[in-house]
Amino acid sequence: MALPRNHWVLTFVCADLPGIVHAVSGAVVASGGNITESQQFSSADTGRFFMRLQVESEASRGEFEAALAPVVERYGMTWQLDVVGRPLRTLVLVSTAAHCLNDLLFRQRAGQLPVQIPLVLSNHGSLRDLAGFYDVPFESLPVTDAASKAAFEQRVIDAVDEHDIELVVLARYMQIISPELCDRLAGRLINIHHSFLPGFKGANPYKQAHARGVKLIGATAHFVTSDLDEGPIIEQNVVRVDHTRTPAELVAIGQDEESRTLTQAVKWFAEDRVLLDGARTIIFR
Amino acid sequence: MALPRNHWVLTFVCADLPGIVHAVSGAVVASGGNITESQQFSSADTGRFFMRLQVESEASRGEFEAALAPVVERYGMTWQLDVVGRPLRTLVLVSTAAHCLNDLLFRQRAGQLPVQIPLVLSNHGSLRDLAGFYDVPFESLPVTDAASKAAFEQRVIDAVDEHDIELVVLARYMQIISPELCDRLAGRLINIHHSFLPGFKGANPYKQAHARGVKLIGATAHFVTSDLDEGPIIEQNVVRVDHTRTPAELVAIGQDEESRTLTQAVKWFAEDRVLLDGARTIIFR
Amino acid sequence: MALPRNHWVLTFVCADLPGIVHAVSGAVVASGGNITESQQFSSADTGRFFMRLQVESEASRGEFEAALAPVVERYGMTWQLDVVGRPLRTLVLVSTAAHCLNDLLFRQRAGQLPVQIPLVLSNHGSLRDLAGFYDVPFESLPVTDAASKAAFEQRVIDAVDEHDIELVVLARYMQIISPELCDRLAGRLINIHHSFLPGFKGANPYKQAHARGVKLIGATAHFVTSDLDEGPIIEQNVVRVDHTRTPAELVAIGQDEESRTLTQAVKWFAEDRVLLDGARTIIFR
Amino acid sequence: MALPRNHWVLTFVCADLPGIVHAVSGAVVASGGNITESQQFSSADTGRFFMRLQVESEASRGEFEAALAPVVERYGMTWQLDVVGRPLRTLVLVSTAAHCLNDLLFRQRAGQLPVQIPLVLSNHGSLRDLAGFYDVPFESLPVTDAASKAAFEQRVIDAVDEHDIELVVLARYMQIISPELCDRLAGRLINIHHSFLPGFKGANPYKQAHARGVKLIGATAHFVTSDLDEGPIIEQNVVRVDHTRTPAELVAIGQDEESRTLTQAVKWFAEDRVLLDGARTIIFR
Repeated sequence: MALPRNHWVLTFVCADLPGIVHAVSGAVVASGGNITESQQFSSADTGRFFMRLQVESEASRGEFEAALAPVVERYGMTWQLDVVGRPLRTLVLVSTAAHCLNDLLFRQRAGQLPVQIPLVLSNHGSLRDLAGFYDVPFESLPVTDAASKAAFEQRVIDAVDEHDIELVVLARYMQIISPELCDRLAGRLINIHHSFLPGFKGANPYKQAHARGVKLIGATAHFVTSDLDEGPIIEQNVVRVDHTRTPAELVAIGQDEESRTLTQAVKWFAEDRVLLDGARTIIFR
Repeated sequence: MALPRNHWVLTFVCADLPGIVHAVSGAVVASGGNITESQQFSSADTGRFFMRLQVESEASRGEFEAALAPVVERYGMTWQLDVVGRPLRTLVLVSTAAHCLNDLLFRQRAGQLPVQIPLVLSNHGSLRDLAGFYDVPFESLPVTDAASKAAFEQRVIDAVDEHDIELVVLARYMQIISPELCDRLAGRLINIHHSFLPGFKGANPYKQAHARGVKLIGATAHFVTSDLDEGPIIEQNVVRVDHTRTPAELVAIGQDEESRTLTQAVKWFAEDRVLLDGARTIIFR
Repeated sequence: MALPRNHWVLTFVCADLPGIVHAVSGAVVASGGNITESQQFSSADTGRFFMRLQVESEASRGEFEAALAPVVERYGMTWQLDVVGRPLRTLVLVSTAAHCLNDLLFRQRAGQLPVQIPLVLSNHGSLRDLAGFYDVPFESLPVTDAASKAAFEQRVIDAVDEHDIELVVLARYMQIISPELCDRLAGRLINIHHSFLPGFKGANPYKQAHARGVKLIGATAHFVTSDLDEGPIIEQNVVRVDHTRTPAELVAIGQDEESRTLTQAVKWFAEDRVLLDGARTIIFR
Repeated sequence: MALPRNHWVLTFVCADLPGIVHAVSGAVVASGGNITESQQFSSADTGRFFMRLQVESEASRGEFEAALAPVVERYGMTWQLDVVGRPLRTLVLVSTAAHCLNDLLFRQRAGQLPVQIPLVLSNHGSLRDLAGFYDVPFESLPVTDAASKAAFEQRVIDAVDEHDIELVVLARYMQIISPELCDRLAGRLINIHHSFLPGFKGANPYKQAHARGVKLIGATAHFVTSDLDEGPIIEQNVVRVDHTRTPAELVAIGQDEESRTLTQAVKWFAEDRVLLDGARTIIFR
C-alpha cells in the first residue's frame, strides 16, 4: 500500500557559503524526499543566500525537520517549512473601491488563490454585500478622527490574533497605517499603490499622472513600512494611455492593473515565493 | 494628363470653438483636396483645439495656403503646413554610447525614419566610425570645463544655423544643456532619459532602480526644458526585470527600450504628430 | 436658460470620395452642433470610407437627422445615430466558466461598461448565483442533443426579440452556434476564443499551446460567423508563459486575458467604435 | 596566492529520479566548487529531469569532470560542461534584410552577446558592407536553381567544419533549408520567423496578418527541423497594430520584434540556457 506523500515547501536564508545546496539536498535524501522545484539566489548586495525548495516526501514533518536540524544549525539559517498549496490565513482591509476585493474573492473561490479569508474589515459599509456574496464575514468601523482610527487599528490587531492571521492585505484601504501597526505587521502587510512607484507617491496618483502627461500608468504592490510608499516592491504592471484620457478615465483604466498586481503579489506571498533582501524582494516565480 | 498630386500635412492649434472642422475642410475642398487622415483633440485642461490633417491635392502650396488664410485668421490658428514624408533636418548629439545613434542611422538608411542628418556632434571621438559607416559627417569637441562647454554649445548653435536644423536629438548625450540653449531650442530639442520618468530623475537611474528593487525598468523620450528631466513626455516604454539583475545588466537590458523609445519619438516628431498642450504632449498616432 | 444639450455618436460608411468630411461637418454646424471627437479611415482594401463622430448639440434627433439627410443621400451612406453612453441591450450566454461573466457584470455595475443585461442564458445552472448577486435574471436549458440544442437556440431568438437585444455575447459559452443563428445575429454576436487566433482554432487551445511549446498565450474576441473561429477579430491580448506551466496552469493564466479581452471588445462595440471592413474590423479607439 | 578560479556552466538531462541534486552538488563540493546559479525542471510530459548549474571552482576541467563521472554514469546523464561567457562560434546566413544581422553584429561588438562570428554567408551581396563595418568576413553565393542551392548548402557544411561552428543562425535567410542540412544541424540551427507561430506559417506572414486583421503581430525564433516552421520554439514577441497599418507598414513594425526575438534566442543558446524536451524547449532564464 502506498504511503501518503507530503508536498513541502522549504524556504531559507543564510550567509552565502559553499556546500549549502549539497547539505540541504542531503537532508532531503536522508528523509526519503525528492526535490520537485528549486530556486536559489546569491545576493551580491547583502552577501546572503536565498533558497526555495519543493519536496515530495513520505516523511512526517517531524522527520523532515529532524533531518534538516543539523544543516539549519551549521549554516545559521532562517527557515520556514510549509505545505504546498496550504491556504494562507489572510485579513483584507478595504474602503469603498470594490475591484481589488472582488478579484481576490473571485479567485479564492475559483481555487486560483491559496488564501483563506476569515474577515474583511472596512472603514465603510459599502462592500458588505460583496463580501457576503462570497460568504466572507465583514465588519465596518468608521475612521473619522484619531480615536476612531486607533480603535480601527486595535480591531485589526485583535483580528490578527483571533484568526491567527498570516497576511494583512490593504486592498485599496485609503487610510494611512500608523508606524506602530506597520512595525507590528512588518513583512506581512501588503498594499496596492495606484501608480508605478517611485513615481507619484502619496495621494491622487492618477491626477498627478495626468498632469505630468505620462504615456504609461501603473500599479505597485509592496510591503508596507512606516516610510510611506517606500516599502519593498513585490510586483508592478503598467498599461499604455494617451493624451485623450481624463483623470477619471485613468482611474478606471488603472483598476485592472491594480487588481491583477495585488492578486499576483498575494499569490506569490501565499506560495512562499517572496523573500526580503534588505529593501528589495526576491521573487522565486 | 494627370496633374502631379501633393500630399500635405496640416497641423494647427486654436481656441476650441464650434465650426472649426467644417471651416478647415471647406478650405480643403475649395482647393481641390481630399482628406486622407485626420485627428483632432479638444483639451479640457487648456481649452485649446488641436488638429492634424493629411490632404491629397492638386493645388500648389500657394493655392492651398490662400484657401486656408481666412480660416486661419478667423480662428486665430497657430498652424504649420508640411509635405508628408519630407525628411526633417536633424542634428544628433552623442557622447560614447552607440545604441541610440546606431538605431537612428540604421532606420534612416532603411527608409523607416523620415530624417536627414547632416551632422553628428559629440564630446567624445568614439562614435566617429559608426557615423562614417552611414556616411554622416561627425565632429567631436571635448567638454571638460565651462569654457569648452560654452564652445560646444556655440558649435551646436552654429550648426543649427548652417544646416537649417529643425530638430536636435540628444541620443545619450551626457552633458546638461544650459538653460539658454534649452530656451533657444524650445520645442525642437528631444532627449532620451534612461528611466521611466518621473521615477529616477538625474544621474545613474539604473543604479537607483536596482537599489529600489523595481520590477520594470524603462525609458522616456521628452522635450528638454531648463527644468532637468521635467520637460513634456513624448514616449515611454518599460521592460520587466527581476531581482537577479545587477545594475550593469539593467544598463544592457534598458538599451533596447532607450533606442526604440527615442526613435519612435523622433519619428512622430518628424511626421508632425507631436503637439504641445502646456506641459503635456498630444500624440496623433 | 440653457437648453439641454444632447451628445450624439454618429458612425457611417460609404464609398471614399472627396468632400465627405466637409459635407458632414456642414450638417453638424447647420444643426447647431460641435464635434467633440472624430476619427476616420479610408480602406485601401475595399475603397470604403469609415467615420465616427461625437457631436454635442442642442438639436433634437429629428433636427439632426434632417440636417444629415441630404448628405447621407448624396454619398449613399450606411449610418447610425446613437446617444453617447446609452447602455446597449446585451444578452449574455454562458456555460460553467465564471470569469468572463463576473467581469462583465462587475464592470457594468461599476459604471465602466455601457451595457444593460436583461438576461443571462446558460446550458448549465452553475452560474445562477453569480447572476443573482448582480440582480440579473438567469435561465438555464440543458443542451444534450440536437433537439435540446435547437430549443436553446430558439430561446436565444425569442429572448433577442423580447428584450430588443442589440448584442449577444458568448462569454465562454461552450456550444457551437448553428449557421442559421450565426447568420441571424451577424454583426451582433461576439465570442471570446481562448487562444491567439489564428493559432489553435477549435477545442482545447491551451492543450494545443502546451504541446506546441509557445512562449505567449492569448485570447481573441471576434464576431461569430458560420466559419468556426474565423470571424472578424475585434481585440487580442497575450501573456508570457514558460516551459514550467502545465495545461491546467495555462487555463488559469489565460482567464485574465480572456476576461479583459472580451470586456474590452464589448465596451468598444457598445460605444459604436467597431465597424466592419470586409473580414477585418475598424476600431475607432 | 589565490588560485585562478574557473566559472563553469554545467547542463544535463536524465531520467527524473530521487537524489540527483544531492549527487551533483556532492561532485561540486568534492571538487572544491560553489554553485552560483541553479535551475532545474522535471518534465511531466517526458519524465525527464533537466538542470543547469553555474559553478565557481579552483578545480581544472579534468578534476571537475572526474568528480562528475560517477554521477553521470549512475544517472545516465547527457551532459555538457562549458565556460561561462565563452563566445559561441556562430555562422550567420542572410539574404537582403539587414535588421537582424545589424542587431547581432552591433550587440556582439558591444559585448552584450557571447558569440564569435567568423563568417556571414549570403545568397545576395547587399549586406557585404554591413559585415565589413564590423570586420566580419562575408561571402555571397547566388541561389537560383537546384544546383546553386546545393552548392550553397555545401558551402555551409564546409564552413561549419572549417570554423568548428557551434550554431548556425538564419537571420532572415529567405531560402528553405534542405531536410538533409536540417538533420545535419539538428539542435544547432535557429531561424527567425516573422509571425507569431503557429499563426501564419509559410510565405508572406505580414500579408496574411493584414488579411486576417489581427490586432497583434509577432516574431518567433525556433529551431529548424525539416517540418517547415514547426521546430521547437525558443522565444516569441508581439507588438500591437491596428486597422490603419498596410502590409508594408506591418513589415517595418515587425522588424523590431524580429531583431530582438532572434538576438534573445541566440543569447540564451550561447549561454547554454536552451534545452530540448521533445518538441518543446526548456529555457533556463
